[in-house]
Amino acid sequence: MSRLLITHAKALLGTHTAGTDLVRGSRMAQLPLIENGWLLAEKGRITALGPMDDMPEVPEGPDLTVIDASGRLVLPGWCDPHTHTVFAAPREEEFVDKIKGLSYQDIAAKGGGIVNSARKLRAMHEDDLYELAHHRLVEMMRLGTVAVEIKSGYGLTTESELKMLRVARRLKENLPLQVRTTLLAAHALPPEFANDRAGYIRLITDTLIPQVAAEGLADFVDVFCETNYFTVAEMEAVLAAGNAHGLPGKVHVNQFTSIGAIEAAVKHRALSVDHLEVMEPSDLQALAHATSGPIPTLLPSCSFFLRIPYGPARQLIDRDLPIALATDFNPGTTPSGNMNLVLSLACIQLRMLPEEAVNAMTLNSAAAMRVHDELGSLTVGKRASLLITKPVPSLAFLPYAFGNDHLDTVLIDGTPVRSGTAFA
Amino acid sequence: MSRLLITHAKALLGTHTAGTDLVRGSRMAQLPLIENGWLLAEKGRITALGPMDDMPEVPEGPDLTVIDASGRLVLPGWCDPHTHTVFAAPREEEFVDKIKGLSYQDIAAKGGGIVNSARKLRAMHEDDLYELAHHRLVEMMRLGTVAVEIKSGYGLTTESELKMLRVARRLKENLPLQVRTTLLAAHALPPEFANDRAGYIRLITDTLIPQVAAEGLADFVDVFCETNYFTVAEMEAVLAAGNAHGLPGKVHVNQFTSIGAIEAAVKHRALSVDHLEVMEPSDLQALAHATSGPIPTLLPSCSFFLRIPYGPARQLIDRDLPIALATDFNPGTTPSGNMNLVLSLACIQLRMLPEEAVNAMTLNSAAAMRVHDELGSLTVGKRASLLITKPVPSLAFLPYAFGNDHLDTVLIDGTPVRSGTAFA
Repeated sequence: MSRLLITHAKALLGTHTAGTDLVRGSRMAQLPLIENGWLLAEKGRITALGPMDDMPEVPEGPDLTVIDASGRLVLPGWCDPHTHTVFAAPREEEFVDKIKGLSYQDIAAKGGGIVNSARKLRAMHEDDLYELAHHRLVEMMRLGTVAVEIKSGYGLTTESELKMLRVARRLKENLPLQVRTTLLAAHALPPEFANDRAGYIRLITDTLIPQVAAEGLADFVDVFCETNYFTVAEMEAVLAAGNAHGLPGKVHVNQFTSIGAIEAAVKHRALSVDHLEVMEPSDLQALAHATSGPIPTLLPSCSFFLRIPYGPARQLIDRDLPIALATDFNPGTTPSGNMNLVLSLACIQLRMLPEEAVNAMTLNSAAAMRVHDELGSLTVGKRASLLITKPVPSLAFLPYAFGNDHLDTVLIDGTPVRSGTAFA
Repeated sequence: MSRLLITHAKALLGTHTAGTDLVRGSRMAQLPLIENGWLLAEKGRITALGPMDDMPEVPEGPDLTVIDASGRLVLPGWCDPHTHTVFAAPREEEFVDKIKGLSYQDIAAKGGGIVNSARKLRAMHEDDLYELAHHRLVEMMRLGTVAVEIKSGYGLTTESELKMLRVARRLKENLPLQVRTTLLAAHALPPEFANDRAGYIRLITDTLIPQVAAEGLADFVDVFCETNYFTVAEMEAVLAAGNAHGLPGKVHVNQFTSIGAIEAAVKHRALSVDHLEVMEPSDLQALAHATSGPIPTLLPSCSFFLRIPYGPARQLIDRDLPIALATDFNPGTTPSGNMNLVLSLACIQLRMLPEEAVNAMTLNSAAAMRVHDELGSLTVGKRASLLITKPVPSLAFLPYAFGNDHLDTVLIDGTPVRSGTAFA
C-alpha cells in the first residue's frame, strides 16, 4: 500500500518534534501526544499528522487504505537495542537444572552456559541458524518490535562469529524491521584460548574488528565486562579498536559486580552501557558527570528470569540521565523477546511511569541503536513503523494489564506485519 | 464436531489414571505422559487414547476431524480456581499512583481499593457487567483456561452481590468453559456497615448465604481473612454458615499477615486456602497435619504485581502437601487472567518443576474448584477440554520461554475455541 490514513485515534503517542533524539531525567515523564488524532503515511514514511479537527481532505484512491482507530492508541513501534536473537537452540534443560538447585558453576561444569550455546552454534549450518532466528524475529515483529539490535558472541571463533553476523545481515535484508548488528566476540573466553586470554583479545582487536568493519558486518562492538569474564582493561582494548574502525561500543557492564567498567565506557565514548543491575554510587556519578555519555540500557526481563536485582531506574532518572529498555533475548538468561512484557516489568518492577517506559522503549531505545533519525517517535519524515492497540481505556492500561496482548495491528514502513480488527 | 482424533502428538501430558483426584508432595513431580500419542474425543468427551503403535482403526466419516499434532504437546486445559473476573472497571489509575509512591492507605483515602470497585459495580447495569466479563473470559479461553472460579465481593450489598452472581451464572450458561461461583461478600466492610461489623456478618450468614444456596447462585463461600479486613472469628462464622448450606469454604488467608486463619480453615473443612504469601511454621504445620485438608492455592501473579513475597511452594511440597495455582485475576492486585504466565511464574519464582506446575494448574486446580471428575487430566470419560501447543522442543520450554504464546489450539468439550495451524 502506498498511502495509509489512520483516523480518530484515541491518542497518537510519542509525537516528539523533529530533532528530539533523546529524553532524559524528568523529561522522560512527558510523552507528547495528540488526542483524537489522524496520521498519514505515504511510501512508508509519516508525511502528516494532527488532531481530527484539523484533518485536511485526503484524496481517495485505490492506493489509499483508511484505518478507523477509534478507541485505540497509536504508538511508535518498539525498538529493542540489546538482543542475542541469533542462537542455535534454547537451553531449557539448564533452567530445570537451576530449579533443582544447581549453581551456575555446576551447570558450567556440565557443559552449560555460553559455551553450551557456542558448541551448538559452531556445529549448525548457517541456513538452519538463519531459519531459527527468522522465526523468532517474525514473532517479535508481531509483538510490536520494529527495530532490533543483534549481537554475535556464541561463535567465539573467527569463522563462527562471522557466520552469526552474516545471518544477521541476511535477516536485515529479508525482513522489514530495522536490524543493527554488534560484534560480541568478547562474550566468553573460548576453550581454545583458555591459557591465552591476551591472544583472544588480540584476535578480536587485530583481526575480527578490522574484518567486520571492512565487510560492513557490524555497527557496534560489545564486551561482557564482568568478574570471571572480561576485565576492564580488556574491554578498553576492544572499545579502542572499535572506535578506530568506526564501531562504537555497546557494553555489558555491572550485571553481577561493579568493577569500574562504567568509567571506562564513558572514557571510550560508548553508545550505551547495558544491564546496570549492580551500581555503586561512583558508577552513577560517572554516568551523571558525562556529557553526552553512554545511554543506560536496562534489561528487566533478565532480572525477572534470573531473580537478580532490577536496574536502578529511579536513581538514573533522578540524576537527569536517559534510560533505554531492551529485552536481552537470549537462550541462557532471558528466553523472551517480548517488549510488551518489558513495558510491564519497567512499570511494576523498575517503578517507571508508563510515559517514562514508553519513551525508553521508543525514542531512547532508538537512540541506543542509532536509528532515532528513522524511528522512535511519530514524527513527520520518520518511518511509519507503528503500533495500533486494541481498544484500551488509557496508556497506563498497557503495562497494568500485564501478560495480555494489547496490540491489534503492527505496521512497519506503512505495511502491516500483523493486522487485527482495526482493519475491519 | 462430534468426533475428534488427535494423532502423532509429541506427547500427551497429564494422562492420570481415572480416580486420581489430586497429587501431593513428591508425586507432583510426576506428570504421566504418553509419547507419540493419539487421543479420540466423541461428543465432547475423551473416549480413548494411547501410543500411536496401538492406535486402532478409527472409522472415517463426515463427523470426524483429524488433527496431526506432530511436534506438539497435548495437555489438559488450565483450570483457574481463584478469580474475581466480574468487575466494573480496571483500576490502572491506582497502579500509577502506586508508582508515584502513594501507599495503600493513601489510595484508600482517595477512594481507591476494593471500595472503589464496589462503587463502580453497584452503579453498573447487570448487562454491561456481563458484557465486560464475557469479553475477559473469551480472552482467557483463548489463553487455555477451560474452567474458572468467579467470586462476588465487589457488591457488598445484598442486591449487588446477587447481581454479580447472576452475571456469573449467565456466563456459565452462555460460554463453553466450566464456571463455578463463590460468594465473597466478606471481601471488605461496606461503608454502610462501618460501625456495625457484626451486622454485616449477620447479613452474610443469615440472609445472603441462605438465599444464594436456595437459588443455586454459588458453589462456595469465601472470606478475606486479614488484618484490617475480617477476623478469624468472623471467617469462622461465615464458614460455618456456608457448611450448613452445602457451600464449602475457599478462603483468602495469610496474604499479608499470619493471624491463625489456616488452623480455623482446617477446622471448618475448607476446600482451599488461597494466597499463603506469609506463612509461619505453625501455619505449615496446621496444613501438614490435616487429613484431606484444604488445598493450598498459590497466586504468583499477585505477588508479581504487588511485589510481595511469593508463596512457599517448596516448603508445601516438602511437607507432602498438594498445590493448586490460580491467576487471582482482579482489577486491584492482579490485572491478568493469563494462566500461561502463571506457569512461568511458578517455575521461575516459586521454583516449581514444570511437571509440578502443570499438575498444580490442571488436576489439583480442578480439585480446588471441584471439577476434577470432569477436567484436569487426559483421562477417558473426562471432558475433551485440552490444549495443543505450537511445535515446541519440550514441556520445560513452555515456562522457560516466558511471555510467549505457545498455544496453537484450545478445545473445550471437543470443540475449538481457538484453532491454529494444527488444523491446517
